[in-house]
Amino acid sequence: MDILIINGPNLNLLGRREPGIYGTRSFESFFPELEEAFPDHTLTQFQSNHEGAIIDKLHEVGFTHHGIVLNAGGYTHTSVALADAVAAIATPVVEVHLSNLHAREEFRQKSLFGRHCAGSISGFGLESYRLAVQWFANQTPKRVGFRV
Amino acid sequence: MDILIINGPNLNLLGRREPGIYGTRSFESFFPELEEAFPDHTLTQFQSNHEGAIIDKLHEVGFTHHGIVLNAGGYTHTSVALADAVAAIATPVVEVHLSNLHAREEFRQKSLFGRHCAGSISGFGLESYRLAVQWFANQTPKRVGFRV
Amino acid sequence: MDILIINGPNLNLLGRREPGIYGTRSFESFFPELEEAFPDHTLTQFQSNHEGAIIDKLHEVGFTHHGIVLNAGGYTHTSVALADAVAAIATPVVEVHLSNLHAREEFRQKSLFGRHCAGSISGFGLESYRLAVQWFANQTPKRVGFRV
Amino acid sequence: MDILIINGPNLNLLGRREPGIYGTRSFESFFPELEEAFPDHTLTQFQSNHEGAIIDKLHEVGFTHHGIVLNAGGYTHTSVALADAVAAIATPVVEVHLSNLHAREEFRQKSLFGRHCAGSISGFGLESYRLAVQWFANQTPKRVGFRV
Amino acid sequence: MDILIINGPNLNLLGRREPGIYGTRSFESFFPELEEAFPDHTLTQFQSNHEGAIIDKLHEVGFTHHGIVLNAGGYTHTSVALADAVAAIATPVVEVHLSNLHAREEFRQKSLFGRHCAGSISGFGLESYRLAVQWFANQTPKRVGFRV
Amino acid sequence: MDILIINGPNLNLLGRREPGIYGTRSFESFFPELEEAFPDHTLTQFQSNHEGAIIDKLHEVGFTHHGIVLNAGGYTHTSVALADAVAAIATPVVEVHLSNLHAREEFRQKSLFGRHCAGSISGFGLESYRLAVQWFANQTPKRVGFRV
Amino acid sequence: MDILIINGPNLNLLGRREPGIYGTRSFESFFPELEEAFPDHTLTQFQSNHEGAIIDKLHEVGFTHHGIVLNAGGYTHTSVALADAVAAIATPVVEVHLSNLHAREEFRQKSLFGRHCAGSISGFGLESYRLAVQWFANQTPKRVGFRV
Amino acid sequence: MDILIINGPNLNLLGRREPGIYGTRSFESFFPELEEAFPDHTLTQFQSNHEGAIIDKLHEVGFTHHGIVLNAGGYTHTSVALADAVAAIATPVVEVHLSNLHAREEFRQKSLFGRHCAGSISGFGLESYRLAVQWFANQTPKRVGFRV
Amino acid sequence: MDILIINGPNLNLLGRREPGIYGTRSFESFFPELEEAFPDHTLTQFQSNHEGAIIDKLHEVGFTHHGIVLNAGGYTHTSVALADAVAAIATPVVEVHLSNLHAREEFRQKSLFGRHCAGSISGFGLESYRLAVQWFANQTPKRVGFRV
Amino acid sequence: MDILIINGPNLNLLGRREPGIYGTRSFESFFPELEEAFPDHTLTQFQSNHEGAIIDKLHEVGFTHHGIVLNAGGYTHTSVALADAVAAIATPVVEVHLSNLHAREEFRQKSLFGRHCAGSISGFGLESYRLAVQWFANQTPKRVGFRV
Amino acid sequence: MDILIINGPNLNLLGRREPGIYGTRSFESFFPELEEAFPDHTLTQFQSNHEGAIIDKLHEVGFTHHGIVLNAGGYTHTSVALADAVAAIATPVVEVHLSNLHAREEFRQKSLFGRHCAGSISGFGLESYRLAVQWFANQTPKRVGFRV
Amino acid sequence: MDILIINGPNLNLLGRREPGIYGTRSFESFFPELEEAFPDHTLTQFQSNHEGAIIDKLHEVGFTHHGIVLNAGGYTHTSVALADAVAAIATPVVEVHLSNLHAREEFRQKSLFGRHCAGSISGFGLESYRLAVQWFANQTPKRVGFRV
Repeated sequence: MDILIINGPNLNLLGRREPGIYGTRSFESFFPELEEAFPDHTLTQFQSNHEGAIIDKLHEVGFTHHGIVLNAGGYTHTSVALADAVAAIATPVVEVHLSNLHAREEFRQKSLFGRHCAGSISGFGLESYRLAVQWFANQTPKRVGFRV
Repeated sequence: MDILIINGPNLNLLGRREPGIYGTRSFESFFPELEEAFPDHTLTQFQSNHEGAIIDKLHEVGFTHHGIVLNAGGYTHTSVALADAVAAIATPVVEVHLSNLHAREEFRQKSLFGRHCAGSISGFGLESYRLAVQWFANQTPKRVGFRV
Repeated sequence: MDILIINGPNLNLLGRREPGIYGTRSFESFFPELEEAFPDHTLTQFQSNHEGAIIDKLHEVGFTHHGIVLNAGGYTHTSVALADAVAAIATPVVEVHLSNLHAREEFRQKSLFGRHCAGSISGFGLESYRLAVQWFANQTPKRVGFRV
Repeated sequence: MDILIINGPNLNLLGRREPGIYGTRSFESFFPELEEAFPDHTLTQFQSNHEGAIIDKLHEVGFTHHGIVLNAGGYTHTSVALADAVAAIATPVVEVHLSNLHAREEFRQKSLFGRHCAGSISGFGLESYRLAVQWFANQTPKRVGFRV
Repeated sequence: MDILIINGPNLNLLGRREPGIYGTRSFESFFPELEEAFPDHTLTQFQSNHEGAIIDKLHEVGFTHHGIVLNAGGYTHTSVALADAVAAIATPVVEVHLSNLHAREEFRQKSLFGRHCAGSISGFGLESYRLAVQWFANQTPKRVGFRV
Repeated sequence: MDILIINGPNLNLLGRREPGIYGTRSFESFFPELEEAFPDHTLTQFQSNHEGAIIDKLHEVGFTHHGIVLNAGGYTHTSVALADAVAAIATPVVEVHLSNLHAREEFRQKSLFGRHCAGSISGFGLESYRLAVQWFANQTPKRVGFRV
Repeated sequence: MDILIINGPNLNLLGRREPGIYGTRSFESFFPELEEAFPDHTLTQFQSNHEGAIIDKLHEVGFTHHGIVLNAGGYTHTSVALADAVAAIATPVVEVHLSNLHAREEFRQKSLFGRHCAGSISGFGLESYRLAVQWFANQTPKRVGFRV
Repeated sequence: MDILIINGPNLNLLGRREPGIYGTRSFESFFPELEEAFPDHTLTQFQSNHEGAIIDKLHEVGFTHHGIVLNAGGYTHTSVALADAVAAIATPVVEVHLSNLHAREEFRQKSLFGRHCAGSISGFGLESYRLAVQWFANQTPKRVGFRV
Repeated sequence: MDILIINGPNLNLLGRREPGIYGTRSFESFFPELEEAFPDHTLTQFQSNHEGAIIDKLHEVGFTHHGIVLNAGGYTHTSVALADAVAAIATPVVEVHLSNLHAREEFRQKSLFGRHCAGSISGFGLESYRLAVQWFANQTPKRVGFRV
Repeated sequence: MDILIINGPNLNLLGRREPGIYGTRSFESFFPELEEAFPDHTLTQFQSNHEGAIIDKLHEVGFTHHGIVLNAGGYTHTSVALADAVAAIATPVVEVHLSNLHAREEFRQKSLFGRHCAGSISGFGLESYRLAVQWFANQTPKRVGFRV
Repeated sequence: MDILIINGPNLNLLGRREPGIYGTRSFESFFPELEEAFPDHTLTQFQSNHEGAIIDKLHEVGFTHHGIVLNAGGYTHTSVALADAVAAIATPVVEVHLSNLHAREEFRQKSLFGRHCAGSISGFGLESYRLAVQWFANQTPKRVGFRV
Repeated sequence: MDILIINGPNLNLLGRREPGIYGTRSFESFFPELEEAFPDHTLTQFQSNHEGAIIDKLHEVGFTHHGIVLNAGGYTHTSVALADAVAAIATPVVEVHLSNLHAREEFRQKSLFGRHCAGSISGFGLESYRLAVQWFANQTPKRVGFRV
């Protein structure tokens, strides 16, 4: 399966940014380990701090890829446009978060696009990504299919 | 008159995206019909999923064009920056929406920039655009003028 | 097509009432111009300050006319009974407002019956009515039909 | 001066209705005493349970009378249409209430049209009407004039 | 016992109006069946779309009839004036609704006059009326008496 | 028909508990009278102060009995788990309350499970139960059936 | 009768302070005119910007004077302590305001102590004081008495 | 590792209850498959509709087991006591939900105990449990340890 | 006097549970010290994690004991049923809390049953219980009596 | 130990003020009894209706006394400045109230400074003060110490 | 220029009070350094814990001084009277705060008088005062003038 | 010191945009004056209407520059992603605004990233920038250092 991992704003700073909350390991050092763990699948990644660029990317792959793992960072809680994009595409999206949103500020406890996702995984640090890919891997490609 | 139609995020997917809400026709196939209907006016269009690109465009044409028809999609409800841009320019703006916002989710019932527009038209599908251009066409260029 | 324009409370004072907001022209002086602009359609009008009388009128024409243009004035924001009436009838209703509700008091930014309308037009002064009738005129009678 | 006292819904039951709150005397028995107290002024009264009828009456006298004393009963707290009517007319309006609204239910503590009145008097029972008329009587007709 | 059934706005459309919610049978066709079921009581009915007319009617019968069954439609949720009228009269009132308000929109889940009623019955369609009359019939006239 | 009456927390104290609100008669003394009134039906009752026990009981009878009359006491306003149970079972449930919830504290005016009930009856004291059973008795067993 | 007029914070600046809202006349220049108008009564006045000093004064005269006219300025909307003081004393208090609170900011539309007053008069400028004293003058000393 | 799966209210009805939301398979039929998938771990399960029984069980295993997978059903959103229990114990807890809470009612979008969990997984149906156990299995027992 | 101390959910973990908030001493080790301090009174204790069991216990002793000291833990903030039980019984109840609720989360700052208690003591750790029993001991049995 | 009791606004009227709520006994008559009950401690008292004076007093004794018992009356619910003062000083403060705040108006159920107190006691009338002093007396001076 | 620095409640404790938030230096030790830094201007200071005294002082200097630097402490968030005083005077006021209000409690994030100030500076500790005086010093006396 | 000034959306229109609020001078004409005023420091500037571009820029300079002056325009109130970026970097940020936010619309009174800034300055027009740079200049480079 073709699975794209999209990381939103500030996730390029992972490992340097508020390590007490987000941990000390960068996504770049974690990604090869993830690829190794799922040798039968094609994993790619995309990071941007631009809301519009993430929407463009969702449109680009959202009718051809088998799965998208989306950590939209701060846009999770504020972007109706992003939520509309997730709703508009056909590829199933799994929402992930590094930290447990329920243990954080009130404004981080609402996901605007969660309702359009296949599921949501949060709080396990970088392991959240592994579980998300695991879910796609557990499915047969046919069962994932495309949302209607 | 020079009239620019600006389409915001996800409107490039029109016809493919949630057709039960937004219909099955793309804006591209509708635009030539619109041009034909108003042969005395110069209609142009611009689409972007980037909030900043829409603001840039408003600045670019907002002191020279006679009118702007703006469907800001999801940014309608969240972008103070876009609202500030509409307030900052001199060209009159007409707000349009494909769907009737009052029949949708609570968060779609508030337009942050509506207060800075000449008027608002929603719910008629692609016909909303036609009525907006019609309003500009009904005005004499002098009466439209520029806002102060 | 038979199209009825319903004006709600205080619209009989148009031209005399808060001209800074509502303009200086009465609906009576505007109506003949509107009739002239749509010679192929039968336009009639009805004004009342009584919530119940507007509901009675909606019931009376709501299964036979082709279209209703409704400016419910202050009842727009408070009358569940009126909203139920709009929902109950079969004729399509277009909501119009003289002023741009988004630029006014908070309590005027909610329309209780907007969700049951074909569309909504606000902010263009008396031109709002013209655009509403234009929409009906653009449709073929068959396409308007009756709501289900 | 010509001063009209308008009583809204249920005030025809005064004296019979919840006497613990509203007292045991009817407005009819009080009115002659009020007329006597202001022999130099023409006092008239109007009562209706119909929101629309009160609006009609405000329109009817609102450009000719010198003053209106308005107890709108339950419509005080719910009628935007009535508030628009008070704002639309030229005659100054004084709002009165029999009971002290601050000592009653939360929803009675907001007057939708109070902002368009010359002043507001509440809590003195039928004496509230006397103070309202007294205020008009204290003014010279010229000073009352009409609102702009 | 003399029992009046009052139906508020849009209930004259029963059977034609949103049958998915309100059913396909009109009140007129149900009323004779109701009269038959309670041969020892005098049932009458009144319908109006006018808030003021319903208040007038409550005043008219509210000190002489034994019971009132009131379905105030949309006025249930917005009319303080109607609530004041129910509180003002002496005859016990039973509130009925065709649909289960708790399964509908948020704004329909609040009854402004419910607190002044003997009881409330909702959700059983036209059978709600039968249960309301049944309650009056189960009482001895003396026990019903008048509220103080 | 098999009809179970479920009484929730503190209803075992009926007659002793706040008699000004709930009356002076216990449910135990009322129940035989209820059985007598409906000799063609099998009435049983269950009381518990335990939220879990009420859920267990709903599961136990909720696919075999013809009807359930449920007075959930304080759990009415707080228990999502109970509401889920009412939604989960097939037997129709009628919600009853002794007191008129609209005349009580704000937090008692919301029923979490009302939306999953066939109807709701409140305010008639113990007579509320009689009307609930009456409704089942008025139905033919076939018409009651099971909810889907 | 002994009647004390209490003016709260900033009212010593009357005539200099925001004249568009509060007028151009000082209370000092108005008071002699007020005394003249009520020659049969002993009027005194007290002004302080200190919440505690106003409470002290209410305690001092609140069991001996016949009436208090209170314009508490900004403390009207924030002081529970002042409201408790008004509730604690025996002398009737009439609340006055120069401006019509309903036409001002939201936070000025709530009076914390209004519920403990005999009545409330607002919006008539300095004439509000005259009407308040007039009400005391209209009463016989016996009827005013002390609150229980 | 010893891992206990706790299912809260109504989850015993899985497969029979609102299958459109919760699917048609019971937990009982899924559990053996789960055991097979993790042969190196001891999985046990516990179901109760009683809030207190779930708290008792958390206390019982919460200082000895290696992990707890908790689907608290309706108690997720209402039980402070349960949240206190999760916070009080030492064993890490992973929160799971069958349905995607963000796509459901507003009141289901808040988890009271989520903040005390290692992570949260929702929306994947019964697969949510598998991912939760997978997370424990991915950890070395030492890394799981006990929370401080 | 017979005084029962009721401890609600998670208080059985006292000393082990979040010692930074609740301290390191168990209630069991404190209770004998409390008994010694009040040798003239019969103190008993009851702990349960079950809301229903606490209600049952309140019913059991609530018409015979002289006093109840109640620490309802998490049920303090969520249980209407428990609040109804406290209101229903005759024995005076004193509410206690180990921690100062005002220094904790927002949702812990509201006690649903506090209004039905003789008084409330919080923040003194286990000493809160001692002060509660002290209050009963300071009363003469006659003065405590039973609430009406 | 040196313990100061501070009474806020209107508490000088205790015994005269709303005796149904606050009782008929003055603090002055109660204080000697309190002194007698704690012969080993030096009790002093201070009363003021001035927010600033109470803050001054807290500053004055807040670094030397062993304990402060504070009944801030109406300032409890409105004074951030007072709350800052309690937080700023070193002496432990115990909050007391005569009445049970939970049984009173909504706005009295929030204490702005409660979070900075050692504990809170309310509802026992003048006995609330005795319990507060008792708590200080139960501590060894060393254990009370000063807050950091 | 004559510039007065007003410090509100608890600022006399600066250096002793919650040093983690407010720092360890007193205002008294900082003021001479400030005077030295602006040798061409006359700086004076005033501190009070009394709301009324601060209002008195604003009135006293508010029509003669060139500038006021105001740190109103806790009154910033609660005092309408103080806000009215700032609005009433002619001298420009600059609002300062030691700590960054946005990083503190919710209730500290609203300034009632900020809207009447020339500007606002917060978060720089005692340096906030220096920047405020700097702003006055950067202006020519004529440009500061008095507000209208 | 290296200090970067970042201007957000619409600030490129300064001087042309709503001059009543924002003044008539452009930032470009002001910047050279600012550079001159601080000859010992290297000032640079960056303007963008793109949220993502501002975040990119913050990342780019946020670990090397000595200071950042940030006027984020409309993104101040809506962008969690920007707030996360400010929190993520090491360089101290000072927030500035041209207008006094407290005197503007409600939605402009909340800064999402203010809590992560060294301080905040608003209301002084372009002078706000000068004061912000002044603060950096007043510090020794060592004292500014980097945030941890």
